[in-house]
Amino acid sequence: MAKITKVSPLAPERFPDLPVIGGVAFATAAAGVKYQGRTDVMLATLVPGTTIGGVFTRSATRAAPVLDCQNKIGGASGAGAAILVNSGNANAFTGKNGVASVKAIAKAVAASCEVPEDRVFTSSTGVIGEPLPHDRVIAVLDDLAGRTDTAAIADAAKAIMTTDTFPKGASAEVEVDGKTVRIAGIAKGSGMIAPDMATMLVYIFTDAAIAQPALQAMVSAHADKTFNCITVDSDTSTSDSLIVAATGTSDVDASDSDAFSEALHAVMLELAHLVVRDGEGATKFVTVAVTGAASDADAKVHAMAIANSPLIKTAIAGEDPNWGRVVMAVGKSGAAADRDRLSIRFGDQEVARDGWRSPSYSEEAAATHMKGTDIEIGVDLGLGEGRATVWTCDLTHGYIEINADYRS
Amino acid sequence: MAKITKVSPLAPERFPDLPVIGGVAFATAAAGVKYQGRTDVMLATLVPGTTIGGVFTRSATRAAPVLDCQNKIGGASGAGAAILVNSGNANAFTGKNGVASVKAIAKAVAASCEVPEDRVFTSSTGVIGEPLPHDRVIAVLDDLAGRTDTAAIADAAKAIMTTDTFPKGASAEVEVDGKTVRIAGIAKGSGMIAPDMATMLVYIFTDAAIAQPALQAMVSAHADKTFNCITVDSDTSTSDSLIVAATGTSDVDASDSDAFSEALHAVMLELAHLVVRDGEGATKFVTVAVTGAASDADAKVHAMAIANSPLIKTAIAGEDPNWGRVVMAVGKSGAAADRDRLSIRFGDQEVARDGWRSPSYSEEAAATHMKGTDIEIGVDLGLGEGRATVWTCDLTHGYIEINADYRS
Repeated sequence: MAKITKVSPLAPERFPDLPVIGGVAFATAAAGVKYQGRTDVMLATLVPGTTIGGVFTRSATRAAPVLDCQNKIGGASGAGAAILVNSGNANAFTGKNGVASVKAIAKAVAASCEVPEDRVFTSSTGVIGEPLPHDRVIAVLDDLAGRTDTAAIADAAKAIMTTDTFPKGASAEVEVDGKTVRIAGIAKGSGMIAPDMATMLVYIFTDAAIAQPALQAMVSAHADKTFNCITVDSDTSTSDSLIVAATGTSDVDASDSDAFSEALHAVMLELAHLVVRDGEGATKFVTVAVTGAASDADAKVHAMAIANSPLIKTAIAGEDPNWGRVVMAVGKSGAAADRDRLSIRFGDQEVARDGWRSPSYSEEAAATHMKGTDIEIGVDLGLGEGRATVWTCDLTHGYIEINADYRS
Repeated sequence: MAKITKVSPLAPERFPDLPVIGGVAFATAAAGVKYQGRTDVMLATLVPGTTIGGVFTRSATRAAPVLDCQNKIGGASGAGAAILVNSGNANAFTGKNGVASVKAIAKAVAASCEVPEDRVFTSSTGVIGEPLPHDRVIAVLDDLAGRTDTAAIADAAKAIMTTDTFPKGASAEVEVDGKTVRIAGIAKGSGMIAPDMATMLVYIFTDAAIAQPALQAMVSAHADKTFNCITVDSDTSTSDSLIVAATGTSDVDASDSDAFSEALHAVMLELAHLVVRDGEGATKFVTVAVTGAASDADAKVHAMAIANSPLIKTAIAGEDPNWGRVVMAVGKSGAAADRDRLSIRFGDQEVARDGWRSPSYSEEAAATHMKGTDIEIGVDLGLGEGRATVWTCDLTHGYIEINADYRS
């Protein structure tokens, strides 16, 4: 297996200081599921009354823990709850054995943490098609449950990493009814090394009190504009999971708070961007902003066609302002476009307008923008009010190196 | 611009001997549209009575010559006709000037070849967004028209190349009503070097007589199973064009001949495979065969999701039998799938069955298959009778090298 130990050039300088969220505590352990010499199991315990919302991959081949979480989301919040994550094995495409592993782990977590089994949410990330040695996970649970710590979220961010090159965290504080509530979240993704699958896992905690339907509505809406608007290589994991837990320990009900919803959106967006910044082989962070489309949905189709185009992503890697490839991607996307109304910009530089090269086009100015680390591609369709923004990275030799290596 | 002069390792040993097709003659010239020291204009003249069918890119940003061809296909076949192709400039995204260039060339070809202007079909392939210097093309037309040669099809195959590493041709002979008719075709694609666009151009000729509606029906049906079943990198050109001309000089009417239709299909499939074998950076020719899907359409969606997955294509480049990534691609495709009925094979090796690793799985045997040049991935959904086969190549450092180079 390839060892890509270099940290992404797009990584932030350091892991942020995340606020303690009342009602949630963390513990991690090195269970040796697959990795040696590092933590690979993370437990988060949640106080009674915590509401939980989540969104999960729509893959038709999703993993057993994902299906189990989907069944449990929305359940009653009276009792305490727990989240248990292992890295190194995705427990995906493992048939009946995979279902049995989830059940065994959930049962053991319920016993160790004294919570109902239907309030235990598990995730697994790593290699697929291999049986999960769940006994190794279960063996560390009593120890974990005995030493949870409200301040250990940074350790939690590390334990859920697979081939990530840095741990990912983000937070916000927001005033609701004159009182402060806090949000803190962690994410992993999307380092992929043969034979691992891309998996993106996200856990966000808040001390606000939020009714479960309100929480789920916020999470679903924001996921569409954050995590569902990023792409590294167009390949969708069997295990993507996003769970948001509201403990209510602040005694502030934020169910109807626009300010809270906006703060949650900001935390989700920051974590989504961090996932892109750790995209395999990435050297550029790319924003694709589409306006003037016939609808928002059309705008997103165009934006994703651009963000997933290998020709555009390789041109960005080569710092080439190759706007002709953007024309190509708009043309192939399937959404409405009129070649002669199309305009394109790279950064602030208009490169094409009304179906041809812009009169003000300067290859030199466009090339200067491409030499930066943060690239912005703007496309206006000239058709309507539809708009969408998505984020991606470039396609480099690093991606090939990471993914074309022999498994054995 | 990068100079990739090495011939694809998947190229055939030599250009085939193609039969002369009565009623069509070729001439080529070095007009200096962009390239120096090579031919870049190809003229094919067709006798009166020739019927012409064609299929073209569905890109919303297709080039001016494509739109012009689409308007002319299906016209009356009484008069002669001509096909004129230039390489080096795609005349795409060039606004009103692009339309004027097409009109100027068609008018000049009509005069030089003494055919109606609405029977002149032009294609352009190469850089996009640059004005086409059509005067250079027009300057060589009288000379070309004066020296067309029925045996010059190999020269024609060379003149339409852009960054192709070898010229592409295929042919068939077939008995219809006890007499022999011949089919010969040439193609270009899909070498792409910044800032060129992928363009695939195909021209096929036959001396059979075929009513235009029958010819168009055959071409459209076969295109769906040949050229529309190949992918190098999921990026769709603004200029893809396939034109089939039936001169009728054999005096054999093949309008209702299944044998002819099958032979035409075989020629189209061989040309499509040659395009994949010249895919950028390709080192493996990959067949993806999906069976047992809920419908043929679903099978094709799954097959294309597999064939376009960067993770699968890089695994193939690395000779890694990473079947977990095939599970992932089936899951993300959006077409119907049941994880627990899915089986997968690499070559003859069953690697997964009924939602888990196959009992007979041998990593060594699977790895042996991956070391070959021709890779076959078989997927059975276990749901119905739907099937589809598509063809692609691997994703290698060569692709990044070709496409990430600086334009200037």
